[in-house]
Amino acid sequence: MSSTTSTAPARSARTLAAVLHHQPPGADVRLAGWVHRRRRLAGVSFLLVRDRSGIAQVVVADPATRDELDRLAEETSVVVEGIATANPQAPGGVEVTQPRLTALTDPAETPPVELWRPELSAGLPALLDNAAVTLRHPRRRAVWQLAAASLRGFRDTLDAAGFTEIRTPKIVTGSTESGANVFGVDYLGRKAFLAQSPQFYKQMMVGVAERVYEVGPVFRAEPHDTVRHLSEYTSLDVELGFVADHRDVLQVLRSVLAGMTDAAAASPAAALLRPRMPVVPEQIPVLHFTEALRLVGADPDEPDLAPEHERRLGAWAHREHGSDFVAVEGFPAAKRPFYTHPQPDDARYTNSFDLLFRGLELVTGGQRLHRYPDYLAALKARGEDPAQYQGYLQAFRHGMPPHGGFAIGLERWVARLLELDNIRLAALFPRDVHRLTP
Amino acid sequence: MSSTTSTAPARSARTLAAVLHHQPPGADVRLAGWVHRRRRLAGVSFLLVRDRSGIAQVVVADPATRDELDRLAEETSVVVEGIATANPQAPGGVEVTQPRLTALTDPAETPPVELWRPELSAGLPALLDNAAVTLRHPRRRAVWQLAAASLRGFRDTLDAAGFTEIRTPKIVTGSTESGANVFGVDYLGRKAFLAQSPQFYKQMMVGVAERVYEVGPVFRAEPHDTVRHLSEYTSLDVELGFVADHRDVLQVLRSVLAGMTDAAAASPAAALLRPRMPVVPEQIPVLHFTEALRLVGADPDEPDLAPEHERRLGAWAHREHGSDFVAVEGFPAAKRPFYTHPQPDDARYTNSFDLLFRGLELVTGGQRLHRYPDYLAALKARGEDPAQYQGYLQAFRHGMPPHGGFAIGLERWVARLLELDNIRLAALFPRDVHRLTP
Repeated sequence: MSSTTSTAPARSARTLAAVLHHQPPGADVRLAGWVHRRRRLAGVSFLLVRDRSGIAQVVVADPATRDELDRLAEETSVVVEGIATANPQAPGGVEVTQPRLTALTDPAETPPVELWRPELSAGLPALLDNAAVTLRHPRRRAVWQLAAASLRGFRDTLDAAGFTEIRTPKIVTGSTESGANVFGVDYLGRKAFLAQSPQFYKQMMVGVAERVYEVGPVFRAEPHDTVRHLSEYTSLDVELGFVADHRDVLQVLRSVLAGMTDAAAASPAAALLRPRMPVVPEQIPVLHFTEALRLVGADPDEPDLAPEHERRLGAWAHREHGSDFVAVEGFPAAKRPFYTHPQPDDARYTNSFDLLFRGLELVTGGQRLHRYPDYLAALKARGEDPAQYQGYLQAFRHGMPPHGGFAIGLERWVARLLELDNIRLAALFPRDVHRLTP
Repeated sequence: MSSTTSTAPARSARTLAAVLHHQPPGADVRLAGWVHRRRRLAGVSFLLVRDRSGIAQVVVADPATRDELDRLAEETSVVVEGIATANPQAPGGVEVTQPRLTALTDPAETPPVELWRPELSAGLPALLDNAAVTLRHPRRRAVWQLAAASLRGFRDTLDAAGFTEIRTPKIVTGSTESGANVFGVDYLGRKAFLAQSPQFYKQMMVGVAERVYEVGPVFRAEPHDTVRHLSEYTSLDVELGFVADHRDVLQVLRSVLAGMTDAAAASPAAALLRPRMPVVPEQIPVLHFTEALRLVGADPDEPDLAPEHERRLGAWAHREHGSDFVAVEGFPAAKRPFYTHPQPDDARYTNSFDLLFRGLELVTGGQRLHRYPDYLAALKARGEDPAQYQGYLQAFRHGMPPHGGFAIGLERWVARLLELDNIRLAALFPRDVHRLTP
């Protein structure tokens, strides 16, 4: 495309750092990128140029060009034209010699963190406050590249399985899960809310397209400052019809996780970060909620799993099944939303599950109610007015098949995959109880 | 996958309507879907079953089964097990005979519109108020399928060209374009806003990954009730670095439009809706703003193009160049945001463009400023305080390359492609000045 071949001032084709070693020795090359690092030695200066693909080494011998390089501070955008030259010591075995340098901007100010160091040593506030710059560090950038690769793996898996991508409104009139933790919006003088999930819409769309997914922001007015919650995050939502029960949903989740894992593993970012890639077993081990409580020695009347329980279940799955994943099904009805399908043989429990990844909840899913009278009864039992849910309930008055689905938090997936100790490191510009900028 | 093969109560593999004609005559088949239409004739009843792929015909001769079918109202979810039987009159030449019917829900209520008619005759409010049901109509569903195909074409084109998908926050502290038309959010007691565009973030991310795109919701507190505005819509945002000027951006836009067009044309939905597919020329015709005014006979001092001007320019492009697209570059600086790059030889104009599709603005794009002092000057000239833009401006203090980008409104694209007379028909659950539900 001309956009990659016509950057001023030079007109020769641009060479990306990652393919510099494909250039024949002696070839004219043109790099474009950022001054990543300069080193002036006694007789020669080195310049590392960073672009979207990697880092290329440039050797500057000419005294005038060396002086010129001294003025190009780290992070200045540059074009470098020179000769591809074999050097076993250079990254990839090829470097650029006899360079002509062209700065595309004034010399950059000194970055708030040293981006050229192999590891960023800055603390979390400095990383996040200066995100526009700190995300340029190859390791920070690679974290997001794994997120982007995961998104592609998610979509490709579902596209191949007959799913349709949907986009549903984020400004809504009610909350999905409960009245708590919802952001209010002034909608041209009316009171509205930011959607906590696309739950109702994805169910309605099962009636239209059977199998749907959405990648979009969800909003939780999370008042607690924890390492695993954001107030805005990316939810990967899936819903499908004509299922027997939640086990069919779990099988789709398995294939999605495998697709995301494969896509992340194939990303160049994985070669840099070398995450411990999970094995996604053909059958993810499944425990009933009551079994799970027994296994971790918890009180059998516990209504939910505590973080410590999740950790122990993760360890159990790894020890007994060699699996980084374990699903817990049959969560008590009291702890699940009104649309959750009961367990057919014992209505104290539900056809819903949590999926734990390395001992932390990553996914919540399950089978939903699909009969209209069941919705009316479920809402009545919770003291809710069905009239509040009119547009949603309409779908069920007109023949909804048995269906279910799940939601994966993208940032939580990336944080677990890379074993990051704070979910904020898995978002580009995180939002939390204190943080609204950058 | 087991999810498609284990639907209760039967255990044989499911056959989608679209591939029924691939089944050998005499084969056992199992359909699952919705009762689309029933017809009782003197000696036989017909049942049309709609699923995500299409519509299959079922012939019911057995009297007891005919009576059973009489009780299954349109839209009831059903499983139909029977025999694939050749019949030249059936859709695709194959129908299902000797069926056993299993309803998956109680008989559905009568839909608010007759979904079985080839065309939906309901008015816009009825279509939108009952979206959960009306979107099931094959033609309504196909509109969205073209949107979904377009999204895939957009992403595939950019993924292949080295772009990285990004996800940026929708809750922000300031407005992008101007103080007007922004929704306020109560952010845990602080005042925040819904992002009108990811403009600032995508520019910041050019410093990180050079070439980025985002598919996400944008929010405009649009107080006017028009056929071409929504208050929440899907924006397809692209930004790329190391460009010579806005013409490089336009070349990327051209390839994106070609990718979206090809993906839409390949969708089964295109076979149903038969849209007049645009030809995307290798070079989209480009007019300077001043030429465009002259061509339509407008006052040379007009600061913007009126809708009537756009229509005439669209007709001109079609007549003179056989193109459904025309770009107008060099928009006056006064009408463009502060980050717009001036036209190098005449600062009254800018290196920005609008792309018209069939005489209507579809895309706005252009080259942005990239030097920090230029940003300070541009903000000062508009009486704005740079401190308000701190996180954004930081990117420019640390070496941003020449860059630019564009944004395509997904719903506007679909509406133009299908020549819909109201943009609300191109969204699943539109939001406008009056509409917040369903």
